[in-house]
Amino acid sequence: MQIINGGVTAPQGYFATGVACGIKKDGQKDLAIVCSEDIAATAGVFTSNRVKGHSLKLTQQRVKSNGYASAIIINSGNANACVGDKGDADARDITAKAAELLDCEPDAVLVASTGVIGVPLEMDKVLRGVEEAVSSMEPEGGHDAELAIMTTDTVPKEIAAEINIQGEKVVIGGMAKGSGMIHPNMATMISVITTDANISKKLLDKALRDVCAKTFNRISVDGDTSVCDMVLIFANGLADNPGIVNEDQDYRDFYDALEKVCLFLSKKLAADGEGATKLIEVQVNGAKTPEDAYKACSSIARSPLVKTAINGCDANWGRIITAIGYSGADIDPARIDISINKVKVCRYGAAVAYDEGKVREQLEKDEILISAHLNYGDCSDRMWTCDFSEDYARINGSYRS
Amino acid sequence: MQIINGGVTAPQGYFATGVACGIKKDGQKDLAIVCSEDIAATAGVFTSNRVKGHSLKLTQQRVKSNGYASAIIINSGNANACVGDKGDADARDITAKAAELLDCEPDAVLVASTGVIGVPLEMDKVLRGVEEAVSSMEPEGGHDAELAIMTTDTVPKEIAAEINIQGEKVVIGGMAKGSGMIHPNMATMISVITTDANISKKLLDKALRDVCAKTFNRISVDGDTSVCDMVLIFANGLADNPGIVNEDQDYRDFYDALEKVCLFLSKKLAADGEGATKLIEVQVNGAKTPEDAYKACSSIARSPLVKTAINGCDANWGRIITAIGYSGADIDPARIDISINKVKVCRYGAAVAYDEGKVREQLEKDEILISAHLNYGDCSDRMWTCDFSEDYARINGSYRS
Repeated sequence: MQIINGGVTAPQGYFATGVACGIKKDGQKDLAIVCSEDIAATAGVFTSNRVKGHSLKLTQQRVKSNGYASAIIINSGNANACVGDKGDADARDITAKAAELLDCEPDAVLVASTGVIGVPLEMDKVLRGVEEAVSSMEPEGGHDAELAIMTTDTVPKEIAAEINIQGEKVVIGGMAKGSGMIHPNMATMISVITTDANISKKLLDKALRDVCAKTFNRISVDGDTSVCDMVLIFANGLADNPGIVNEDQDYRDFYDALEKVCLFLSKKLAADGEGATKLIEVQVNGAKTPEDAYKACSSIARSPLVKTAINGCDANWGRIITAIGYSGADIDPARIDISINKVKVCRYGAAVAYDEGKVREQLEKDEILISAHLNYGDCSDRMWTCDFSEDYARINGSYRS
Repeated sequence: MQIINGGVTAPQGYFATGVACGIKKDGQKDLAIVCSEDIAATAGVFTSNRVKGHSLKLTQQRVKSNGYASAIIINSGNANACVGDKGDADARDITAKAAELLDCEPDAVLVASTGVIGVPLEMDKVLRGVEEAVSSMEPEGGHDAELAIMTTDTVPKEIAAEINIQGEKVVIGGMAKGSGMIHPNMATMISVITTDANISKKLLDKALRDVCAKTFNRISVDGDTSVCDMVLIFANGLADNPGIVNEDQDYRDFYDALEKVCLFLSKKLAADGEGATKLIEVQVNGAKTPEDAYKACSSIARSPLVKTAINGCDANWGRIITAIGYSGADIDPARIDISINKVKVCRYGAAVAYDEGKVREQLEKDEILISAHLNYGDCSDRMWTCDFSEDYARINGSYRS
């Protein structure tokens, strides 16, 4: 597998662009299209929030009932959520408009929205944006699409990877936007992955679900889960690889590449959390069950106290063991070891003598690894998060203004 | 019931004081004693964290096995947690020293610690502090005791209430410290309640548990649960009320007063959360089950996005409905109503037209009431929390420095 330039338009047969239709007040791009020249198998992973945005609901329903799609329209600046029946109608109208222009079935167009909740879309602007996007999309337009889906993101997040399956080149491209909170109500995590791989709908779905569990579902910025979070994958089969229909080596090669693409995007999302200055990886080993490993891991990754300490370069491992203690995981406090960037700071649940200067030096880096060994079993988990800075509060205190 | 001056020494037969023994670097008071002249029935509610401080473990064990105590020593500045066997020995030595000076059984002395985790106590300082505290405690010393248990608290938290039980005056006094996070690993929530009521050990325990569930266990600053959190009550029976041994009207009068005392202290703790500028009350009504009400309530109260929005006076109710959506509560999004300080901002899960200026005016107040009606049953719950400011990150980024 090798990383290549580009994003969602790196695989064969994809067109994309991003335009400014006027949803964002500052004239920035706010509407993207990603389109496959051939109808593509699709799969998606959607928010677990019981409240769901209108655009997300329509897309979730279409992915579930059809499993094939030609294009997706994504707008930023407005979540199209919690606005009543108009929100459902607007989502349908956006896809109908795009379908008409693309000359395909309305069911074959998906839609995603991210931004403020509870404010109806100005549909005249959005529909003009759809027209402009369809008429200007191009095979090199992936980057513009990424720019158009960003909200509080500070950097674009794109990647493409090339693999060889039985002598044939297969490409996977992806883009994502966060950012503040990974699962914010308005920032929202949205990612679109494209591939020209020839793979069955069923295995595409399985690969996406399994990979998401290890990547997008292992990042946390502030523990809030958006009503619009989604990860979608399109596979248009234009590569010449023999169709992947079994969980064989070809599937594993595809899976590994997909995992790398999604892991890259996930870490980018965590690192670009609102106000973040550092990427934090949390590893938990030696847990009794996978559930215990997950509980301990996510408790550390969510703790505002851990995240503020890391922001202040403070090796306050007391907060880490505390987070493990209240996580609900089955543990023996007297067996817990904790390291920060490989420097052991706690052994058997108690302080060890360590060089404060050395730990501080580690904590000043951009990437921090917190590892906890529970010494209570052989299950592991890992997650990514970011530190919590004063800017987080500033950004989120005035988001709508 | 009437509120009277004073704190833990307001009831008959209690002595207290606070001294500076040198744990805190700045020379502030850091060791408190609260002592009853007659041995008192005691009950306690302790942290649910699996990791427990050494002082807390000893106190929890003594309260459970004896149910009577004469005094408690509380130090601030050091949590006496996660330091290995020395921590257990130190806790025992502190109580043994105090018992010797007070001429009582070591088992009759309790101990609590709050401060940094993982740093051993300097016992020579602490034991000298115990000596000084025992020799200087006095019947008006409640306020000094409160000052000595504060860590990042910005205001002392004390109250006393007088009730009349069958013609006899009964007094309940209390003090508490937070603060940052209500359940921080170092700030820690500790509260000591004293009363001269004559009440059975069993009912004292029941009253404290039931009251804590509605007060101290309904506050959240940042969702972190300290390894040292505890609420203790002493009842020395020096009032002349006929002993409370049944759940009769006398019990209910005592219970109501205890609830008011604990509610006052809890709200003070929430309002004094680290960096907080506002007290937020979250009410959830119309839930299907009490568990659903609690889930929705605590999800809103814990959401950093909700708390930063309130800090910024932003009526971002989308974040409130989002928090309900991911809370795990059984809900129908299309039935949810939300109000901020009685101004309805969301009806049936969708935006309603409201006067932004009017809501903003409400949001600029010091006390904010977020009410959500789920219209899905008849269960309710309420919690208290605070807003999340830039100062929270600043305070917690450098706590140990």
